[in-house]
Amino acid sequence: MAERKAIITLLTDFGDTDYFVPAVKGAIYSVNRDVDIVDITHQIPPHDVYSAAFNLMCCYKDFPKWTIHLAVVDPGVGSSRRPIFVMTDDYYFIGPDNGIFSYIYQREHVNRVVHLKEQHYFHSPVSNTFHGRDIFAPIAAYVAKQVDWSKMGDQITDYVKFNTPTPTVVSDKEIRGHVIHVDRFGNIITNITENELTYERVMASPRVRLGKHEATRLLNNFSEAGNNELFAYFGSAGFLELAVPRQNAARMTEARRGIEIVITLS
Amino acid sequence: MAERKAIITLLTDFGDTDYFVPAVKGAIYSVNRDVDIVDITHQIPPHDVYSAAFNLMCCYKDFPKWTIHLAVVDPGVGSSRRPIFVMTDDYYFIGPDNGIFSYIYQREHVNRVVHLKEQHYFHSPVSNTFHGRDIFAPIAAYVAKQVDWSKMGDQITDYVKFNTPTPTVVSDKEIRGHVIHVDRFGNIITNITENELTYERVMASPRVRLGKHEATRLLNNFSEAGNNELFAYFGSAGFLELAVPRQNAARMTEARRGIEIVITLS
Amino acid sequence: MAERKAIITLLTDFGDTDYFVPAVKGAIYSVNRDVDIVDITHQIPPHDVYSAAFNLMCCYKDFPKWTIHLAVVDPGVGSSRRPIFVMTDDYYFIGPDNGIFSYIYQREHVNRVVHLKEQHYFHSPVSNTFHGRDIFAPIAAYVAKQVDWSKMGDQITDYVKFNTPTPTVVSDKEIRGHVIHVDRFGNIITNITENELTYERVMASPRVRLGKHEATRLLNNFSEAGNNELFAYFGSAGFLELAVPRQNAARMTEARRGIEIVITLS
Repeated sequence: MAERKAIITLLTDFGDTDYFVPAVKGAIYSVNRDVDIVDITHQIPPHDVYSAAFNLMCCYKDFPKWTIHLAVVDPGVGSSRRPIFVMTDDYYFIGPDNGIFSYIYQREHVNRVVHLKEQHYFHSPVSNTFHGRDIFAPIAAYVAKQVDWSKMGDQITDYVKFNTPTPTVVSDKEIRGHVIHVDRFGNIITNITENELTYERVMASPRVRLGKHEATRLLNNFSEAGNNELFAYFGSAGFLELAVPRQNAARMTEARRGIEIVITLS
Repeated sequence: MAERKAIITLLTDFGDTDYFVPAVKGAIYSVNRDVDIVDITHQIPPHDVYSAAFNLMCCYKDFPKWTIHLAVVDPGVGSSRRPIFVMTDDYYFIGPDNGIFSYIYQREHVNRVVHLKEQHYFHSPVSNTFHGRDIFAPIAAYVAKQVDWSKMGDQITDYVKFNTPTPTVVSDKEIRGHVIHVDRFGNIITNITENELTYERVMASPRVRLGKHEATRLLNNFSEAGNNELFAYFGSAGFLELAVPRQNAARMTEARRGIEIVITLS
Repeated sequence: MAERKAIITLLTDFGDTDYFVPAVKGAIYSVNRDVDIVDITHQIPPHDVYSAAFNLMCCYKDFPKWTIHLAVVDPGVGSSRRPIFVMTDDYYFIGPDNGIFSYIYQREHVNRVVHLKEQHYFHSPVSNTFHGRDIFAPIAAYVAKQVDWSKMGDQITDYVKFNTPTPTVVSDKEIRGHVIHVDRFGNIITNITENELTYERVMASPRVRLGKHEATRLLNNFSEAGNNELFAYFGSAGFLELAVPRQNAARMTEARRGIEIVITLS
């Protein structure tokens, strides 16, 4: 780890109306005052591990090397699901072993996944319903102190991954994918990337159909689109997105996560 | 106070859509750059001193010793209600004297309550409607600088406490309490603690009635409960709570703050 | 710039449910770990540059000298609108050249406005839809490192200002203004200041009419008002406001931004 003060990010479904998030921050600072804490979001819909995984994927790499990402969307809290510590070449991840790091496993070189067991590094006692405060927060604080992983638990290889939806290249003329997220502006994020919609295919005038609606142009930015035009573009997280300038495209098209999109090429 | 950089926490009903919270933070940093500021929540319902007191109670102790807790839910701003500074053995509390620290007075050893009077430590001029920015923020910043309390005001003993609801042990077979909070997940927090629901009573198969609904089991965690089962458990803040796994128990039972619950023992 | 660690504030319409805000923070820290980041608000209604300008005006001066204010409400992202860096006597401002700093130009002595051009100080590559992360964040981080402005772009003088609504003193008996903001409490902020409602006019029993409703008293604070009384007062940002104690005055009067108010003097 760098000499610099560590950054710990927090991603949860705790919301911002209760004492949960500050309890986690207090628990971190109680172990280690020498960290900066940055919120990713606490507005993940309750128990929506998939949404948490998506949001983490979209910004973990914007942080400096050796940032410690703490992600706690944890419907299985108190059960036998394992608390884990994931070490990749560049980052650390701490959270429940419920698939929340599925995209990380795909995209990063995973050096080690540790099942956190050593209660010495937990708060005592551990609440059955708030491992964010009592297990994950102190662990993150100790990781920032460069405590060796081998003191905190045992290495495992059977950690949980969920299947992330993958697009299908049906033919030279058709690619099928899914909506994987709708953002605050109503922009519709699909799982299509430049791997499927390659440069050559982009040249073949792709049209993107979503239910009864169709985006007939792939543009570079919002200002190229017409008023009320549903258009496609590659968004800031690397995915094909659909939007309408200054309007809520998801509301207009009734798009939501899981809905299929079909790209046709000429 | 410790040598370490101080932590100032903020708990308000200012919301997150206006300039109020950043104005408070700017006012703190304008007096003292050498602090870390942590949000507790700013989503307290407007003027709901009771809710603020509850949330503060649930997390103040998670912070390191000597943390400065600034709590501003202040319907009486600009009136004769006093600004106060509360010193306990372990923490500092700053806010209006309207009962917001009632739970703190119950739970901590209070060494001193100071009526803040010395305008030298206020912003000048003081707005009649925004003491958070003009009185409480600079005071917190000066407390973090270890300015002696006696320079800032006079000690008082008649500070305001509201009555916090207490459960009643009606008989060997019955305890009555109240709902004191509903959290983001719809979990229902009651004012019953292990003081009332002692180990022996826990052994006597307690059933918790809430209106037409009843929790028939006291469990250790969510994963022990059945689908759609309303169950009871001791939550992370030390209170008896009611929940339904992965569902919103408050919506299902129409629970809200103030509703009575009845525990029957066999 | 001061020797002290810099403060960077963030004001956006990114909301708090997506990865946008943490991506900006990560991008800042990736260039410069030695800053404190403070959120102003991220709940500006999507694309509402005017609301962003208002909120920035109300709190930028509460921060220490040389604070770097980063404001990104940017409906023209990816178009030819310019990214700019504004240097006043006391503060730095970074954002799109779309009028978001209009109030700053009115109120501060502007030393220089720089059109940011030098890609060396941008993230590479620059997304067409997320300049907050790829241009404004790294620029703010480099400004905090005291990189000279002349390395980052060229000075311009034709930066965009929108017309901010100004009140009209119609006669000795009448002033007309507008609602410019409604806050979280439902308090109604008008564009009337002490410049229009001078001390002498305040002495002439001003009455403030808003649609069918009228505030007949100008008071010092909320506690002087009667139950259900709509009253006027000078608020914490220096504007005449209308409120009802512990109630939502905007809901009661159907006030919203842009509605005219009329002050009559006796």
